[in-house]
Amino acid sequence: MSKLYVVGIGPGSREDMTLRADRALGAAEVIIGYGVYVELIRGFYPGKEYITTPMTEETKRCRIALDTAASGKAAALVCSGDSAVYGMAALVLSLRGECDSPEVEVIPGVTAALGGGALLGAPLTHDFAVISLSDRLTAWDKIERRIEAAARADFTIVLYNPQSRTRPDTLKKACRTLLSLLPADRVCGIARNVGRADESARILTLSELETAETDMFCTVFIGNSETKIINERMITPRGYKDV
Amino acid sequence: MSKLYVVGIGPGSREDMTLRADRALGAAEVIIGYGVYVELIRGFYPGKEYITTPMTEETKRCRIALDTAASGKAAALVCSGDSAVYGMAALVLSLRGECDSPEVEVIPGVTAALGGGALLGAPLTHDFAVISLSDRLTAWDKIERRIEAAARADFTIVLYNPQSRTRPDTLKKACRTLLSLLPADRVCGIARNVGRADESARILTLSELETAETDMFCTVFIGNSETKIINERMITPRGYKDV
Repeated sequence: MSKLYVVGIGPGSREDMTLRADRALGAAEVIIGYGVYVELIRGFYPGKEYITTPMTEETKRCRIALDTAASGKAAALVCSGDSAVYGMAALVLSLRGECDSPEVEVIPGVTAALGGGALLGAPLTHDFAVISLSDRLTAWDKIERRIEAAARADFTIVLYNPQSRTRPDTLKKACRTLLSLLPADRVCGIARNVGRADESARILTLSELETAETDMFCTVFIGNSETKIINERMITPRGYKDV
Repeated sequence: MSKLYVVGIGPGSREDMTLRADRALGAAEVIIGYGVYVELIRGFYPGKEYITTPMTEETKRCRIALDTAASGKAAALVCSGDSAVYGMAALVLSLRGECDSPEVEVIPGVTAALGGGALLGAPLTHDFAVISLSDRLTAWDKIERRIEAAARADFTIVLYNPQSRTRPDTLKKACRTLLSLLPADRVCGIARNVGRADESARILTLSELETAETDMFCTVFIGNSETKIINERMITPRGYKDV
């Protein structure tokens, strides 16, 4: 039976891909994805046919992937990080609907919250909430309501898509909401380009975060009430004997 | 310089480990961990020295790992899923404190929310909250407050450690809180033993979840208001043209 692999490629380096993802991409004849992510892996898997579509053409991208697999070719649709977290797995499964063909295998991957967290230290040891600041597909009111709820309930918060050229103010707006609920010196972190040549991690306060420059390659972390800095790493304790 | 790898081994199968985790364990002389997790990987890496400590001896486990690395042996401390999410990375970094030795490398991994999500379909396409129901280290009041906040703000919710022999009622209690805020037919899912020989996925309603049997090998998913079942998979849409 024809099969489509929907592959989470992790943060960016081949070594942070899973063995299952690596094997699926090695076996694929055609690899489909958003241009930026395809460029991350093209060098690892030469000799493949690559098909890219731009942002806003997610539906077309998924249809190409389904059609390629249905035509009998070994096909893999790649997503950065995990294949479901703000990724394409749900759209692929929705477009396929009640058909059983092609078979779809969702291959999970290290999402930016985990890859970025490891680079910063261990900010996600306790309960956490993941929120995208992109208001392209979600009303800002709903995003803001989630930020407020997560801050009030003392979750560590991970913000995806903090800012982009078309949304220069979304992180600032989120920080103003957070600053109305949390102390200005709350420990925060920014992980950028995780697993790529110029990866970087920065630890800063919530008030510093309000004016920090970020972009679509950044993931932002807001600590909970117990998060601290130890030896330049961002650490959220679990509660084992108070460490 | 001596170095300790804190390794997230993913849900359980070797193929869902990252290449970096696999390489670190292959190179280790001593592998330290909780017994259940060590048993998952012992067969993959024969000829190593394995050291296990039981639950409640997390501090001892981390000290052994730090001391082993400091003695000059290649040491790896394993955690199931990710190395930070309810894992040991924060405790290791806290216990090392302001010392620079041994060097600590946190290797992220596929946490149960991602591995279990892929098995169920794609429940985590939109914002989500991860909450542990274990009240061993966290007061139940705080857990309940987080469940309420996440439900009110329409997060998809992932519950870790839903139930155990010593906590037979925690998932029931959580479901009663959720049922006071969400419809009884809200789409939910249970993933069990992900990546292991007897892995299983079950999709059910929130009212069915209240009486479902789970254990410490289960991860529980509560969909958001848009989560649906398509072809027996649990799907949370992102909003691309309403799919």
